[in-house]
Amino acid sequence: MEQRKWLNSAEQCKANLAAVGDALYAIGGKWKLMIIVALMDHPKRFNELQRTVTGISARVLSNELKDLELNGFVSRTVNNQYPVVVEYSLTEYSLSLEDVLKALGVWGKMHRERIRKMK
Amino acid sequence: MEQRKWLNSAEQCKANLAAVGDALYAIGGKWKLMIIVALMDHPKRFNELQRTVTGISARVLSNELKDLELNGFVSRTVNNQYPVVVEYSLTEYSLSLEDVLKALGVWGKMHRERIRKMK
Repeated sequence: MEQRKWLNSAEQCKANLAAVGDALYAIGGKWKLMIIVALMDHPKRFNELQRTVTGISARVLSNELKDLELNGFVSRTVNNQYPVVVEYSLTEYSLSLEDVLKALGVWGKMHRERIRKMK
Repeated sequence: MEQRKWLNSAEQCKANLAAVGDALYAIGGKWKLMIIVALMDHPKRFNELQRTVTGISARVLSNELKDLELNGFVSRTVNNQYPVVVEYSLTEYSLSLEDVLKALGVWGKMHRERIRKMK
């Protein structure tokens, strides 16, 4: 088995552990990446976002959005019309996650196919 | 802002949500990817693995390993010498996560640098 294909020393393994750990600390958990993907096509209001990210509760979505805003992934825009419209959109910084999301998407699709064939 | 750079329709957004969701369902959570990265340089015994993945408790590591074994990412080898040596190693299938882990590692490094500069 080609275990040394892309990480060939204990030092590299440690460095990669730290880097992956930093990434998971920032965008890990069940929902953050899902919310970011859900905002990729266009900015959304809270209710539309909750419908798109199926299974998330309003309380959790609200907390995750605050966290994502605080960490510079999402911006919240309040439109001072009547009725007031609050919209969530991605920041430029969120686009830095493109490669991560692409890789996860490709892998997720492949993995689902594999599971389907095993059944 | 280039929001339509890589996902340009609501349909693609939905398809990607499903794929990313499938990926997170299989390898999400705080520890699974960390354990996989920790096994990238060479197979490890339980205690060595626990030392490498800092912060994980023995109980959680044990559960995560069982789950990873069940889902085909990790294999457990029992060496029938005395004393008995139990080792955990990555399966071929784990290597399919290479792109995901590379992308996460690159992003995590960049993100840490950004946070450091902001302080």
